[in-house]
Amino acid sequence: MSDEVTAALIIIGNEVLSGRTQDANLHYIAKALVDCGIRLREVRVVADDEAAIIKAVNELRALHRYVFTTGGIGPTHDDITNECVARAFGVPLRRDPRAVERLLRQIKPENLNEARLRMATLPEGCELIDNPVSHAPGYILGNVYVLAGVPRIMQAMFDGLKAGLIGGARILSLSVTLYGSEGLIAAQLAAIQAGHPELEIGSYPFTRDGVYGTAIVIRGIDRAALDTAGGEVREMARQLGIRAESENGA
Amino acid sequence: MSDEVTAALIIIGNEVLSGRTQDANLHYIAKALVDCGIRLREVRVVADDEAAIIKAVNELRALHRYVFTTGGIGPTHDDITNECVARAFGVPLRRDPRAVERLLRQIKPENLNEARLRMATLPEGCELIDNPVSHAPGYILGNVYVLAGVPRIMQAMFDGLKAGLIGGARILSLSVTLYGSEGLIAAQLAAIQAGHPELEIGSYPFTRDGVYGTAIVIRGIDRAALDTAGGEVREMARQLGIRAESENGA
Repeated sequence: MSDEVTAALIIIGNEVLSGRTQDANLHYIAKALVDCGIRLREVRVVADDEAAIIKAVNELRALHRYVFTTGGIGPTHDDITNECVARAFGVPLRRDPRAVERLLRQIKPENLNEARLRMATLPEGCELIDNPVSHAPGYILGNVYVLAGVPRIMQAMFDGLKAGLIGGARILSLSVTLYGSEGLIAAQLAAIQAGHPELEIGSYPFTRDGVYGTAIVIRGIDRAALDTAGGEVREMARQLGIRAESENGA
Repeated sequence: MSDEVTAALIIIGNEVLSGRTQDANLHYIAKALVDCGIRLREVRVVADDEAAIIKAVNELRALHRYVFTTGGIGPTHDDITNECVARAFGVPLRRDPRAVERLLRQIKPENLNEARLRMATLPEGCELIDNPVSHAPGYILGNVYVLAGVPRIMQAMFDGLKAGLIGGARILSLSVTLYGSEGLIAAQLAAIQAGHPELEIGSYPFTRDGVYGTAIVIRGIDRAALDTAGGEVREMARQLGIRAESENGA
Protein backbone atom coordinates (compact mmCIF):
# COMPACT_ATOMS: atom_id res chain seq x y z
CA MET A 1 0.00 0.00 0.00
CA SER A 2 2.80 2.42 -0.90
CA ASP A 3 0.46 4.85 -2.65
CA GLU A 4 -1.68 5.17 0.43
CA VAL A 5 -2.76 8.60 1.61
CA THR A 6 -1.89 9.16 5.25
CA ALA A 7 -2.96 11.56 7.97
CA ALA A 8 -2.06 12.54 11.50
CA LEU A 9 -4.19 14.12 14.20
CA ILE A 10 -3.02 16.53 16.90
CA ILE A 11 -5.38 16.89 19.86
CA ILE A 12 -4.50 20.10 21.65
CA GLY A 13 -5.61 20.50 25.22
CA ASN A 14 -4.55 20.22 28.83
CA GLU A 15 -8.06 19.01 29.68
CA VAL A 16 -7.51 15.70 27.90
CA LEU A 17 -4.08 15.15 29.49
CA SER A 18 -5.40 15.94 32.96
CA GLY A 19 -8.28 13.49 32.60
CA ARG A 20 -10.87 16.24 33.01
CA THR A 21 -12.25 15.55 29.54
CA GLN A 22 -12.49 12.26 27.70
CA ASP A 23 -11.56 12.96 24.10
CA ALA A 24 -14.20 11.99 21.56
CA ASN A 25 -12.62 13.56 18.47
CA LEU A 26 -10.06 10.84 17.77
CA HIS A 27 -12.67 8.15 17.31
CA TYR A 28 -14.87 10.31 15.10
CA ILE A 29 -12.02 11.40 12.83
CA ALA A 30 -10.52 7.90 12.67
CA LYS A 31 -13.79 6.43 11.39
CA ALA A 32 -14.45 9.31 9.01
CA LEU A 33 -10.99 9.02 7.43
CA VAL A 34 -11.58 5.33 6.66
CA ASP A 35 -14.57 6.43 4.58
CA CYS A 36 -12.29 8.83 2.71
CA GLY A 37 -9.63 6.23 1.90
CA ILE A 38 -7.18 8.04 4.17
CA ARG A 39 -5.09 6.13 6.66
CA LEU A 40 -4.69 7.74 10.07
CA ARG A 41 -1.12 6.86 11.03
CA GLU A 42 -0.47 8.76 14.23
CA VAL A 43 -2.24 10.80 16.87
CA ARG A 44 -0.61 13.07 19.40
CA VAL A 45 -2.27 14.66 22.38
CA VAL A 46 -0.27 17.70 23.40
CA ALA A 47 -0.61 20.33 26.11
CA ASP A 48 -1.56 23.98 25.63
CA ASP A 49 2.15 24.64 25.23
CA GLU A 50 3.59 26.62 22.35
CA ALA A 51 6.76 24.59 21.85
CA ALA A 52 4.90 21.27 22.02
CA ILE A 53 2.24 22.34 19.51
CA ILE A 54 4.72 23.82 17.02
CA LYS A 55 6.91 20.71 17.20
CA ALA A 56 3.97 18.38 16.61
CA VAL A 57 2.63 20.46 13.69
CA ASN A 58 5.99 20.67 11.96
CA GLU A 59 6.97 17.04 12.48
CA LEU A 60 3.66 15.65 11.32
CA ARG A 61 2.96 17.97 8.38
CA ALA A 62 6.27 16.87 6.88
CA LEU A 63 5.29 13.21 7.17
CA HIS A 64 1.64 13.08 6.12
CA ARG A 65 -0.61 14.33 3.37
CA TYR A 66 -3.14 15.62 5.90
CA VAL A 67 -2.74 16.88 9.45
CA PHE A 68 -5.82 17.70 11.52
CA THR A 69 -5.74 19.60 14.79
CA THR A 70 -8.54 19.92 17.32
CA GLY A 71 -8.82 22.46 20.10
CA GLY A 72 -7.38 25.79 21.11
CA ILE A 73 -9.14 28.15 18.69
CA GLY A 74 -11.50 29.88 21.12
CA PRO A 75 -11.29 33.41 22.57
CA THR A 76 -9.53 32.75 25.90
CA HIS A 77 -5.84 32.99 26.90
CA ASP A 78 -5.42 29.20 26.82
CA ASP A 79 -6.43 29.08 23.14
CA ILE A 80 -3.06 29.36 21.42
CA THR A 81 -3.45 27.17 18.35
CA ASN A 82 -3.62 30.06 15.87
CA GLU A 83 -0.36 31.62 17.10
CA CYS A 84 1.34 28.22 17.08
CA VAL A 85 0.24 27.25 13.57
CA ALA A 86 1.34 30.64 12.25
CA ARG A 87 4.76 30.21 13.88
CA ALA A 88 5.08 26.63 12.65
CA PHE A 89 4.62 27.91 9.09
CA GLY A 90 6.57 31.12 9.63
CA VAL A 91 3.70 33.34 8.51
CA PRO A 92 2.15 36.31 10.34
CA LEU A 93 -1.20 36.29 12.10
CA ARG A 94 -3.63 38.90 10.90
CA ARG A 95 -7.23 39.92 11.41
CA ASP A 96 -9.16 38.09 8.68
CA PRO A 97 -12.12 40.12 7.36
CA ARG A 98 -13.88 36.98 6.10
CA ALA A 99 -13.69 35.48 9.57
CA VAL A 100 -14.89 38.73 11.19
CA GLU A 101 -17.88 38.69 8.88
CA ARG A 102 -18.70 35.16 10.02
CA LEU A 103 -18.39 36.06 13.71
CA LEU A 104 -20.88 38.87 13.10
CA ARG A 105 -23.47 36.27 12.09
CA GLN A 106 -23.46 35.11 15.71
CA ILE A 107 -22.20 38.06 17.71
CA LYS A 108 -23.66 41.58 17.80
CA PRO A 109 -21.16 44.23 16.63
CA GLU A 110 -21.14 45.89 20.09
CA ASN A 111 -20.20 42.51 21.65
CA LEU A 112 -17.35 41.80 19.23
CA ASN A 113 -14.59 42.56 21.73
CA GLU A 114 -10.86 41.97 21.37
CA ALA A 115 -11.06 38.49 22.88
CA ARG A 116 -13.72 37.38 20.40
CA LEU A 117 -11.75 38.95 17.55
CA ARG A 118 -8.91 36.53 18.40
CA MET A 119 -11.12 33.90 16.74
CA ALA A 120 -10.76 35.89 13.52
CA THR A 121 -7.01 36.47 13.94
CA LEU A 122 -5.63 33.75 11.70
CA PRO A 123 -2.42 32.80 9.91
CA GLU A 124 -1.94 34.67 6.63
CA GLY A 125 -2.88 32.67 3.56
CA CYS A 126 -5.30 30.28 5.24
CA GLU A 127 -8.55 29.08 3.72
CA LEU A 128 -11.58 29.10 6.04
CA ILE A 129 -13.47 26.01 7.19
CA ASP A 130 -17.19 26.49 7.77
CA ASN A 131 -18.56 26.27 11.28
CA PRO A 132 -22.32 25.89 10.90
CA VAL A 133 -22.78 25.59 14.68
CA SER A 134 -21.22 28.74 16.11
CA HIS A 135 -19.71 30.44 13.00
CA ALA A 136 -16.16 30.98 14.37
CA PRO A 137 -14.33 29.29 11.51
CA GLY A 138 -11.62 26.66 11.38
CA TYR A 139 -9.06 26.95 8.61
CA ILE A 140 -6.67 25.16 6.30
CA LEU A 141 -3.04 26.23 5.99
CA GLY A 142 -0.92 24.11 3.67
CA ASN A 143 -1.85 20.55 4.58
CA VAL A 144 -2.93 21.42 8.14
CA TYR A 145 -6.64 21.50 8.97
CA VAL A 146 -7.39 23.42 12.15
CA LEU A 147 -10.66 22.40 13.81
CA ALA A 148 -12.53 23.25 17.00
CA GLY A 149 -12.19 21.06 20.08
CA VAL A 150 -15.86 20.94 21.08
CA PRO A 151 -16.98 17.65 19.48
CA ARG A 152 -20.29 18.96 18.14
CA ILE A 153 -18.51 21.81 16.36
CA MET A 154 -15.55 19.71 15.25
CA GLN A 155 -17.90 17.15 13.71
CA ALA A 156 -19.87 19.80 11.83
CA MET A 157 -16.62 21.28 10.50
CA PHE A 158 -15.27 17.88 9.51
CA ASP A 159 -18.48 16.80 7.80
CA GLY A 160 -18.36 19.96 5.72
CA LEU A 161 -14.79 19.57 4.54
CA LYS A 162 -14.83 15.79 4.08
CA ALA A 163 -15.97 15.87 0.46
CA GLY A 164 -12.87 17.90 -0.42
CA LEU A 165 -10.39 15.39 0.99
CA ILE A 166 -8.67 13.30 -1.63
CA GLY A 167 -7.98 9.79 -0.41
CA GLY A 168 -6.61 6.68 -1.98
CA ALA A 169 -8.48 3.46 -2.53
CA ARG A 170 -11.13 2.87 0.12
CA ILE A 171 -9.87 0.64 2.93
CA LEU A 172 -12.20 -2.33 3.26
CA SER A 173 -12.46 -4.63 6.23
CA LEU A 174 -13.75 -8.06 7.05
CA SER A 175 -14.17 -9.38 10.56
CA VAL A 176 -14.28 -12.98 11.69
CA THR A 177 -15.28 -13.62 15.28
CA LEU A 178 -13.71 -16.79 16.64
CA TYR A 179 -14.93 -18.41 19.84
CA GLY A 180 -11.47 -19.54 20.87
CA SER A 181 -8.49 -17.88 22.52
CA GLU A 182 -5.72 -16.01 20.69
CA GLY A 183 -3.02 -18.41 21.86
CA LEU A 184 -4.74 -21.29 20.10
CA ILE A 185 -4.84 -19.65 16.69
CA ALA A 186 -1.73 -17.47 16.74
CA ALA A 187 0.63 -19.72 14.74
CA GLN A 188 -1.81 -20.39 11.91
CA LEU A 189 -2.99 -16.81 11.84
CA ALA A 190 0.62 -15.65 11.46
CA ALA A 191 0.93 -17.98 8.46
CA ILE A 192 -2.23 -16.52 6.91
CA GLN A 193 -0.85 -13.00 7.41
CA ALA A 194 2.48 -14.06 5.87
CA GLY A 195 0.61 -15.32 2.81
CA HIS A 196 -1.14 -11.95 2.37
CA PRO A 197 1.42 -9.17 2.80
CA GLU A 198 -0.98 -6.75 1.07
CA LEU A 199 -3.49 -7.19 3.90
CA GLU A 200 -3.33 -6.18 7.54
CA ILE A 201 -4.66 -8.85 9.85
CA GLY A 202 -5.34 -7.82 13.44
CA SER A 203 -6.29 -10.06 16.34
CA TYR A 204 -8.30 -8.71 19.29
CA PRO A 205 -9.15 -10.90 22.27
CA PHE A 206 -12.41 -10.50 24.14
CA THR A 207 -14.44 -12.23 26.81
CA ARG A 208 -18.20 -12.24 26.50
CA ASP A 209 -20.39 -13.90 29.12
CA GLY A 210 -17.28 -15.68 30.40
CA VAL A 211 -16.41 -17.12 26.98
CA TYR A 212 -12.98 -16.32 25.50
CA GLY A 213 -13.02 -15.18 21.90
CA THR A 214 -10.88 -13.43 19.34
CA ALA A 215 -12.01 -10.93 16.74
CA ILE A 216 -9.93 -11.18 13.59
CA VAL A 217 -10.03 -8.00 11.53
CA ILE A 218 -8.68 -8.11 7.98
CA ARG A 219 -8.13 -4.78 6.24
CA GLY A 220 -7.04 -3.91 2.73
CA ILE A 221 -8.16 -2.37 -0.52
CA ASP A 222 -8.81 -5.58 -2.50
CA ARG A 223 -12.15 -7.22 -1.75
CA ALA A 224 -11.15 -10.52 -3.39
CA ALA A 225 -7.98 -10.79 -1.29
CA LEU A 226 -10.02 -10.01 1.83
CA ASP A 227 -12.51 -12.74 1.00
CA THR A 228 -9.72 -15.25 0.35
CA ALA A 229 -8.02 -14.49 3.67
CA GLY A 230 -11.38 -14.57 5.46
CA GLY A 231 -11.97 -18.01 4.00
CA GLU A 232 -8.59 -19.15 5.26
CA VAL A 233 -9.40 -17.88 8.76
CA ARG A 234 -12.71 -19.77 8.75
CA GLU A 235 -10.98 -22.91 7.46
CA MET A 236 -8.39 -22.60 10.25
CA ALA A 237 -11.22 -22.35 12.77
CA ARG A 238 -12.92 -25.40 11.30
CA GLN A 239 -9.72 -27.44 11.59
CA LEU A 240 -9.25 -26.33 15.20
CA GLY A 241 -12.89 -27.01 16.06
CA ILE A 242 -13.60 -23.32 16.83
CA ARG A 243 -16.90 -21.68 15.99
CA ALA A 244 -16.54 -18.72 13.60
CA GLU A 245 -18.85 -15.86 12.51
CA SER A 246 -18.01 -13.53 9.61
CA GLU A 247 -19.06 -9.99 8.97
CA ASN A 248 -18.21 -7.64 6.11
CA GLY A 249 -17.21 -4.17 7.18
CA ALA A 250 -16.97 -0.86 5.41
CA MET B 1 6.44 23.92 38.48
CA SER B 2 9.96 23.11 37.34
CA ASP B 3 10.33 20.18 39.74
CA GLU B 4 7.23 18.53 38.36
CA VAL B 5 7.31 14.83 37.51
CA THR B 6 6.15 14.20 33.96
CA ALA B 7 4.94 11.21 31.99
CA ALA B 8 4.03 10.24 28.45
CA LEU B 9 1.72 7.52 27.20
CA ILE B 10 2.10 5.51 24.00
CA ILE B 11 -1.06 3.76 22.83
CA ILE B 12 -0.03 1.01 20.41
CA GLY B 13 -2.62 -0.34 18.04
CA ASN B 14 -3.99 -0.14 14.53
CA GLU B 15 -7.46 -0.72 15.97
CA VAL B 16 -7.53 2.71 17.60
CA LEU B 17 -6.23 4.48 14.47
CA SER B 18 -8.73 2.72 12.23
CA GLY B 19 -11.65 3.67 14.48
CA ARG B 20 -12.50 0.04 15.18
CA THR B 21 -11.86 0.54 18.90
CA GLN B 22 -12.46 3.61 21.01
CA ASP B 23 -9.50 3.92 23.35
CA ALA B 24 -10.38 3.96 27.04
CA ASN B 25 -6.86 3.73 28.46
CA LEU B 26 -5.85 7.36 28.00
CA HIS B 27 -8.63 8.68 30.21
CA TYR B 28 -8.00 6.10 32.94
CA ILE B 29 -4.26 6.71 33.06
CA ALA B 30 -4.64 10.50 32.85
CA LYS B 31 -6.88 10.54 35.91
CA ALA B 32 -4.77 8.03 37.84
CA LEU B 33 -1.57 10.03 37.25
CA VAL B 34 -3.17 13.16 38.72
CA ASP B 35 -3.66 11.16 41.95
CA CYS B 36 0.06 10.30 41.87
CA GLY B 37 1.25 13.88 41.42
CA ILE B 38 2.51 13.02 37.94
CA ARG B 39 1.76 15.28 35.02
CA LEU B 40 0.87 13.54 31.77
CA ARG B 41 2.49 15.76 29.14
CA GLU B 42 2.00 13.90 25.87
CA VAL B 43 0.17 10.94 24.41
CA ARG B 44 0.92 9.28 21.10
CA VAL B 45 -1.22 6.72 19.36
CA VAL B 46 0.97 4.73 16.98
CA ALA B 47 0.35 1.87 14.56
CA ASP B 48 1.56 -1.71 14.97
CA ASP B 49 4.69 -0.64 13.15
CA GLU B 50 8.17 -1.34 14.44
CA ALA B 51 9.81 1.92 13.36
CA ALA B 52 6.94 4.01 14.73
CA ILE B 53 6.93 2.27 18.11
CA ILE B 54 10.71 2.40 18.56
CA LYS B 55 10.80 6.09 17.65
CA ALA B 56 8.03 6.95 20.10
CA VAL B 57 9.61 4.93 22.93
CA ASN B 58 13.04 6.47 22.46
CA GLU B 59 11.87 10.05 22.01
CA LEU B 60 9.55 9.98 24.98
CA ARG B 61 11.69 8.05 27.46
CA ALA B 62 14.39 10.69 26.99
CA LEU B 63 11.95 13.48 27.83
CA HIS B 64 9.90 12.14 30.73
CA ARG B 65 10.37 10.43 34.08
CA TYR B 66 7.73 7.83 33.21
CA VAL B 67 6.58 6.37 29.90
CA PHE B 68 3.62 4.02 29.80
CA THR B 69 2.69 1.90 26.81
CA THR B 70 -0.57 0.02 26.24
CA GLY B 71 -1.18 -2.76 23.75
CA GLY B 72 0.73 -5.23 21.65
CA ILE B 73 1.86 -7.74 24.28
CA GLY B 74 -0.39 -10.68 23.33
CA PRO B 75 0.49 -13.91 21.53
CA THR B 76 -0.39 -13.03 17.93
CA HIS B 77 1.75 -11.79 15.03
CA ASP B 78 0.44 -8.23 15.38
CA ASP B 79 1.72 -8.03 18.98
CA ILE B 80 5.18 -6.55 18.49
CA THR B 81 5.65 -4.33 21.53
CA ASN B 82 8.18 -6.62 23.25
CA GLU B 83 10.49 -6.74 20.21
CA CYS B 84 10.20 -2.99 19.77
CA VAL B 85 10.94 -2.11 23.39
CA ALA B 86 13.94 -4.46 23.38
CA ARG B 87 15.28 -2.81 20.21
CA ALA B 88 14.61 0.67 21.54
CA PHE B 89 16.81 -0.14 24.54
CA GLY B 90 19.31 -2.22 22.55
CA VAL B 91 18.87 -5.30 24.76
CA PRO B 92 18.04 -8.87 23.69
CA LEU B 93 14.68 -10.56 24.11
CA ARG B 94 14.80 -13.77 26.09
CA ARG B 95 12.41 -16.32 27.51
CA ASP B 96 11.76 -15.16 31.07
CA PRO B 97 11.27 -18.06 33.51
CA ARG B 98 9.37 -15.87 35.98
CA ALA B 99 6.91 -14.95 33.23
CA VAL B 100 6.59 -18.58 32.11
CA GLU B 101 5.73 -19.53 35.67
CA ARG B 102 2.98 -16.91 35.69
CA LEU B 103 1.55 -18.10 32.37
CA LEU B 104 1.34 -21.60 33.86
CA ARG B 105 -1.07 -20.28 36.50
CA GLN B 106 -3.58 -19.76 33.69
CA ILE B 107 -2.51 -22.13 30.93
CA LYS B 108 -2.05 -25.91 31.18
CA PRO B 109 1.54 -27.00 30.35
CA GLU B 110 0.36 -28.95 27.28
CA ASN B 111 -1.31 -25.78 25.95
CA LEU B 112 1.72 -23.54 26.45
CA ASN B 113 2.62 -23.36 22.76
CA GLU B 114 5.22 -21.14 21.08
CA ALA B 115 2.70 -18.38 20.44
CA ARG B 116 1.72 -18.18 24.10
CA LEU B 117 5.37 -18.31 25.13
CA ARG B 118 5.87 -15.05 23.20
CA MET B 119 4.05 -13.44 26.15
CA ALA B 120 6.98 -14.60 28.30
CA THR B 121 9.65 -13.51 25.80
CA LEU B 122 10.68 -10.19 27.26
CA PRO B 123 13.52 -7.68 27.08
CA GLU B 124 16.48 -8.66 29.23
CA GLY B 125 16.65 -6.87 32.54
CA CYS B 126 12.98 -6.05 32.87
CA GLU B 127 10.98 -6.19 36.09
CA LEU B 128 7.57 -7.85 35.87
CA ILE B 129 4.24 -6.10 36.42
CA ASP B 130 1.49 -8.24 37.93
CA ASN B 131 -1.52 -9.14 35.85
CA PRO B 132 -4.14 -10.39 38.30
CA VAL B 133 -6.69 -10.87 35.51
CA SER B 134 -5.00 -13.20 33.03
CA HIS B 135 -1.47 -13.57 34.48
CA ALA B 136 0.52 -12.73 31.31
CA PRO B 137 2.67 -10.00 32.88
CA GLY B 138 3.52 -6.48 31.86
CA TYR B 139 6.99 -5.20 32.68
CA ILE B 140 9.18 -2.23 33.50
CA LEU B 141 12.38 -1.57 31.58
CA GLY B 142 14.25 1.56 32.59
CA ASN B 143 11.53 4.20 32.88
CA VAL B 144 9.18 2.46 30.43
CA TYR B 145 6.13 0.64 31.81
CA VAL B 146 4.66 -1.84 29.34
CA LEU B 147 0.98 -2.60 29.94
CA ALA B 148 -1.75 -4.62 28.25
CA GLY B 149 -4.17 -2.97 25.84
CA VAL B 150 -7.37 -4.61 27.07
CA PRO B 151 -8.73 -1.96 29.46
CA ARG B 152 -9.75 -4.37 32.22
CA ILE B 153 -6.25 -5.87 32.30
CA MET B 154 -4.46 -2.56 31.85
CA GLN B 155 -6.40 -1.10 34.77
CA ALA B 156 -5.58 -4.04 37.04
CA MET B 157 -1.90 -3.74 36.11
CA PHE B 158 -1.89 0.01 36.68
CA ASP B 159 -3.69 -0.19 40.01
CA GLY B 160 -1.06 -2.66 41.20
CA LEU B 161 1.95 -0.58 40.23
CA LYS B 162 0.51 2.81 41.16
CA ALA B 163 1.75 2.76 44.77
CA GLY B 164 5.32 2.42 43.46
CA LEU B 165 5.21 5.55 41.29
CA ILE B 166 6.98 8.54 42.79
CA GLY B 167 5.24 11.77 41.89
CA GLY B 168 5.73 15.36 42.86
CA ALA B 169 3.30 17.46 44.81
CA ARG B 170 -0.28 16.46 44.17
CA ILE B 171 -1.93 18.58 41.50
CA LEU B 172 -5.07 20.15 42.93
CA SER B 173 -7.90 21.66 40.96
CA LEU B 174 -10.76 24.03 41.51
CA SER B 175 -13.59 24.52 39.03
CA VAL B 176 -15.86 27.49 38.70
CA THR B 177 -18.84 27.12 36.40
CA LEU B 178 -19.87 30.42 34.87
CA TYR B 179 -23.22 30.88 33.15
CA GLY B 180 -21.83 33.24 30.54
CA SER B 181 -19.91 32.83 27.31
CA GLU B 182 -16.11 32.66 27.00
CA GLY B 183 -15.92 35.79 24.88
CA LEU B 184 -17.42 37.87 27.70
CA ILE B 185 -14.88 36.86 30.32
CA ALA B 186 -11.75 36.28 28.24
CA ALA B 187 -9.96 39.58 28.88
CA GLN B 188 -10.42 39.53 32.66
CA LEU B 189 -9.64 35.82 32.85
CA ALA B 190 -6.37 36.42 31.01
CA ALA B 191 -5.50 39.06 33.61
CA ILE B 192 -6.24 36.60 36.43
CA GLN B 193 -4.00 34.00 34.75
CA ALA B 194 -1.26 36.62 34.31
CA GLY B 195 -1.42 37.35 38.05
CA HIS B 196 -0.94 33.65 38.90
CA PRO B 197 1.84 32.26 36.72
CA GLU B 198 2.17 29.29 39.13
CA LEU B 199 -1.37 28.17 38.27
CA GLU B 200 -2.84 26.84 35.05
CA ILE B 201 -6.23 28.30 34.29
CA GLY B 202 -8.27 26.58 31.58
CA SER B 203 -11.52 27.74 30.04
CA TYR B 204 -13.98 25.25 28.54
CA PRO B 205 -17.20 26.39 26.88
CA PHE B 206 -20.36 24.34 27.10
CA THR B 207 -24.03 24.61 26.27
CA ARG B 208 -26.53 23.02 28.60
CA ASP B 209 -30.26 23.16 27.88
CA GLY B 210 -29.57 25.91 25.38
CA VAL B 211 -27.67 28.07 27.91
CA TYR B 212 -24.06 29.06 27.13
CA GLY B 213 -21.60 28.54 29.92
CA THR B 214 -17.90 28.30 30.60
CA ALA B 215 -16.17 25.96 33.00
CA ILE B 216 -13.05 27.54 34.46
CA VAL B 217 -10.59 24.96 35.77
CA ILE B 218 -7.73 26.16 37.93
CA ARG B 219 -4.91 23.68 38.56
CA GLY B 220 -1.82 23.86 40.71
CA ILE B 221 -0.13 22.50 43.81
CA ASP B 222 -0.89 25.32 46.23
CA ARG B 223 -4.40 25.22 47.70
CA ALA B 224 -4.21 28.81 48.97
CA ALA B 225 -3.25 30.14 45.53
CA LEU B 226 -6.09 28.11 43.99
CA ASP B 227 -8.58 29.57 46.43
CA THR B 228 -7.34 33.10 45.78
CA ALA B 229 -7.66 32.70 42.01
CA GLY B 230 -11.05 31.04 42.41
CA GLY B 231 -12.20 34.06 44.46
CA GLU B 232 -10.97 36.37 41.70
CA VAL B 233 -12.94 34.41 39.10
CA ARG B 234 -16.10 34.63 41.21
CA GLU B 235 -15.54 38.35 41.75
CA MET B 236 -15.11 38.82 37.99
CA ALA B 237 -18.41 37.00 37.47
CA ARG B 238 -20.12 39.16 40.07
CA GLN B 239 -18.91 42.35 38.33
CA LEU B 240 -20.11 41.05 34.95
CA GLY B 241 -23.46 39.92 36.37
CA ILE B 242 -22.76 36.25 35.58
CA ARG B 243 -23.90 33.44 37.87
CA ALA B 244 -21.02 31.30 39.18
CA GLU B 245 -20.80 27.93 40.96
CA SER B 246 -17.58 26.62 42.54
CA GLU B 247 -16.43 23.10 43.13
CA ASN B 248 -13.21 21.78 44.65
CA GLY B 249 -11.57 18.99 42.69
CA ALA B 250 -8.96 16.38 43.49
